Amino acid sequence: PETKLPSVGTTIFTQMSALAQAHGAINLSQGFPDFDGPEALLSRVDHYIRQGANQYAPLSGVEPLCTAIAAKVERCYGRRVDAASEVTVTAGATEALFAAIAAVVRAGDEVIVFDPAYDSYDPAITLNGGCAVHLPLAPPRFAIDWDQVARAITPRTRMIILNTPHNPTGQVLSREDLDALSSLVAGTDILLLADEVYEHIVFDGADHQSVHRYPALAERSFVVSSFGKTYHTTGWKLGYCVAPAPLTTELRKVHQYVTFSTSTPMQLALADYMQAHPEHDQQLPVFYQAKRDRLNARLADSRFDFAPVAGTYFQILDYSAISDLPDTEFVHWLIEHAGVAAIPLSVFYEQPPAMKRIRLCFAKHVETLDQAAERLCKI
Amino acid sequence: PETKLPSVGTTIFTQMSALAQAHGAINLSQGFPDFDGPEALLSRVDHYIRQGANQYAPLSGVEPLCTAIAAKVERCYGRRVDAASEVTVTAGATEALFAAIAAVVRAGDEVIVFDPAYDSYDPAITLNGGCAVHLPLAPPRFAIDWDQVARAITPRTRMIILNTPHNPTGQVLSREDLDALSSLVAGTDILLLADEVYEHIVFDGADHQSVHRYPALAERSFVVSSFGKTYHTTGWKLGYCVAPAPLTTELRKVHQYVTFSTSTPMQLALADYMQAHPEHDQQLPVFYQAKRDRLNARLADSRFDFAPVAGTYFQILDYSAISDLPDTEFVHWLIEHAGVAAIPLSVFYEQPPAMKRIRLCFAKHVETLDQAAERLCKI
Ligand SMILES: CSCCC(=O)C(=O)O
Ligand SMILES: CSCCC(=O)C(=O)O
Repeated sequence: PETKLPSVGTTIFTQMSALAQAHGAINLSQGFPDFDGPEALLSRVDHYIRQGANQYAPLSGVEPLCTAIAAKVERCYGRRVDAASEVTVTAGATEALFAAIAAVVRAGDEVIVFDPAYDSYDPAITLNGGCAVHLPLAPPRFAIDWDQVARAITPRTRMIILNTPHNPTGQVLSREDLDALSSLVAGTDILLLADEVYEHIVFDGADHQSVHRYPALAERSFVVSSFGKTYHTTGWKLGYCVAPAPLTTELRKVHQYVTFSTSTPMQLALADYMQAHPEHDQQLPVFYQAKRDRLNARLADSRFDFAPVAGTYFQILDYSAISDLPDTEFVHWLIEHAGVAAIPLSVFYEQPPAMKRIRLCFAKHVETLDQAAERLCKI
Repeated sequence: PETKLPSVGTTIFTQMSALAQAHGAINLSQGFPDFDGPEALLSRVDHYIRQGANQYAPLSGVEPLCTAIAAKVERCYGRRVDAASEVTVTAGATEALFAAIAAVVRAGDEVIVFDPAYDSYDPAITLNGGCAVHLPLAPPRFAIDWDQVARAITPRTRMIILNTPHNPTGQVLSREDLDALSSLVAGTDILLLADEVYEHIVFDGADHQSVHRYPALAERSFVVSSFGKTYHTTGWKLGYCVAPAPLTTELRKVHQYVTFSTSTPMQLALADYMQAHPEHDQQLPVFYQAKRDRLNARLADSRFDFAPVAGTYFQILDYSAISDLPDTEFVHWLIEHAGVAAIPLSVFYEQPPAMKRIRLCFAKHVETLDQAAERLCKI
C-alpha cells in the first residue's frame, strides 16, 4: 500500500547515532548529554516508586509539576499562567509539538516553517493534512527576513513555528524579531508554536527572548519546553506545553488520545527538584558556555571555520577549507577519517542547499570534547 | 476558532476519577490497580537510573526489551517475530493505537469499530481524516455479527479494530470469531488493529484468542499490548506494538515524530523483569480471577444483576432492578448515595443506547472490593 509519509525515512539522529556506534566514533551527532542529571533529581524517582506513585497521572500532569512550571514561567519571564488550565505535561517536547499541530492544523491549512527546521515539524503538519510553507534562512546568521514572512502569509496561514534558541544553527531571535512578528500577526487569527526547548541555554550574557515575555504573542501561542534538555534527562521523555486555556483545551483533547499521560514517578521527582532548586536554570548558561568555549578553543587551530553559537548545545562548523563533499557525504567521511559523528545541516532544509556545514553537540564531558577536537584538528 | 474535535470532551475516566476524589468515593471507575507491581520490577528502575541510563532510548525501544517482547510472543502464542524490525515500544498502548491509525488511515478511509469501543479509537480516526463506521453490539453477550461486518465492508474499508479481552464489556472473542474474521478479510487489503492490552487477564480456563495465533490475520495486523496492565504500572505509560516489518516501518515513521522514544530506565527495568519472571503472565489469570470472584460473591445479595466476565479487570453490572435513571445519571447517583464510582456503559457507543449497565474495576485490594460491595449491597 502507498505510504502516508513517503519522504520520511529514519530520523537523521538515529541514523548518525547508529553509524557512530558501528564505527566506534565519538558521537557528537544526536543531541544528548554524556553526563547525568543532578543526584537530587535522580534519587527522587525511586522515592516515588516506593511510595506507590505508579498509576496514571492526571492527563494534564501531576499538580505539583504543573504548579512548578507555572512558578518557573513567572520567575523567568514575568508571565502568570494558570497551572490547572494552561499547563500540560507531555511525553517529551516532541509530543507537545505534535499535539499542538494536531490540535489546530486542519486539512489545507498552511504552516510557516523556517529552514533549517527540526525534523518533526514537517511530518506532523503533513499527517494532519496541512501544508508546510518553508522559508529558507541563509548562513552564517540564518536571520529571518520578516518582509519575506509577510509575503508568505495567506488567508490559509494557520500557524507559524518559531524555534529559539535555534536547533540546529545555535542562533537566537532578538527583541526586534519578536516585535516584527508581533506586528505581522496583530489582528490576524494566526497561531504560534514556539519551540523553546533550549530556553535556558543562551550565551555571552544574552537574554532568551521567550514568547512568554510578549503578551500579544503569548495569547496566541503554544510554548513548548523540555525537561530532558534542562535537567540532562533526555531519556525520561518529559516535556510540557504552556498555552492559553482555550488552546490548552484543544491540545489536551489530542494529548489524552495520543498518550493520555506521562510517567507519574518521574513527574513527581521533577516537581520536587524544580521546587527545591530554582537556581538550576540560571546555572545552565555558565555550565554550557564553558563547554562551548572549551570546544571552540580546542578547534581554533583546526581547518574548520566557525563563530561561537549564541545558544543551544550545538556548535556549527564550516568545513569548506577541508573538503568539497556535500555535507551529507562529508559526515560519513568524517566518521571514517576522524572518528567523530556529526549532523549535516542541509538535511534540515526542505530544498537542501549546497552547504558545507555540520553540527556538533557539545553536551559532553570535557574529556569527550577534547578528544573529539584533537581528532578534528588532524584533518 | 472552530475545533477539530468538536464532540470530544475530557475523557470519561478522568471525569469519574475526579468526581470520585471530590466525593471521597471508592474509585472503581478508571481502570488501574490500587496495588503495586512486583518489587523485582520496581527496584530495577533506580538501578538503571544509577547506571546512567537516562538518555534517549532507540526509537524502536531498547534492544533487551524488544527481545523480551519477541520471546514472550513466541512463548505465549507460538509466533516468531523479529525483535529488530517488528516490535516497537510506545508511550503506553494509547500511543501504539494512535500511531497505528495515523500510520495507515488516510483521508476518506473507513475504519470499522465495534461499540462499545474504547474512547481513543474514534478521535484518532477522526484526527487522521478517516471515518469510523460503528457497529453496535448488544448486551448481554455483545457478540459480533460477522454477516453485519461483511455488509459494512466497502472498498474504502482500510482497517478493522478488534479488542479482546474487551474493555468495557469483559467479553472475549472465540476461535469462531477469529475464523470468521479471517474469511472476511482474506484476499482484501484490510488491515487489523488488535487491542490486546488485557491479553493475560482471561478467566475460567479460557484461552485468549490472540491475533498472534492466526497467521492469516497476524500478517495484516498491528497487535497492541500494555506493560501497565500486565505489571500493575499504568503510570509508567509503556506499551508496545507488534506488526510485520512493512507495517512497523510505517508505524515508526509516526512514532518517531509523535514521541520519538520512551523512558530508558523503565524500559530496561521491564526487560530484566520479563526475562527473569516469565511466570508472571501465567499467574495473572488466577490473581485477577480471585478478585473477580470475590467481588461477585459479595455482590450476590445485592439488587444488581450480572454474569461473571470472561476477561479484563472490569465487571459489568445491570442495575435495572434498582433505578430507572439512564446510566450516565445513575453513576452520579451512585457516587452520592453509595460512595462508589463506576463507569456508565452507554458512553462507549457512538449512538448511546438506553442502557442500565455500569462497569466496575476490580483491580483492587480485597479490602477495597469488600468495602465497595458492602456499599453496593445497601442500595
Ligand atoms: C529526539 S533525537 C534528536 C535529539 C535532538 O533534539 C537533536 O539532536 O537535535
Ligand atoms: C487511560 S485512563 C483509562 C484507563 C482504562 O483503560 C479504562 O478505565 O478503561
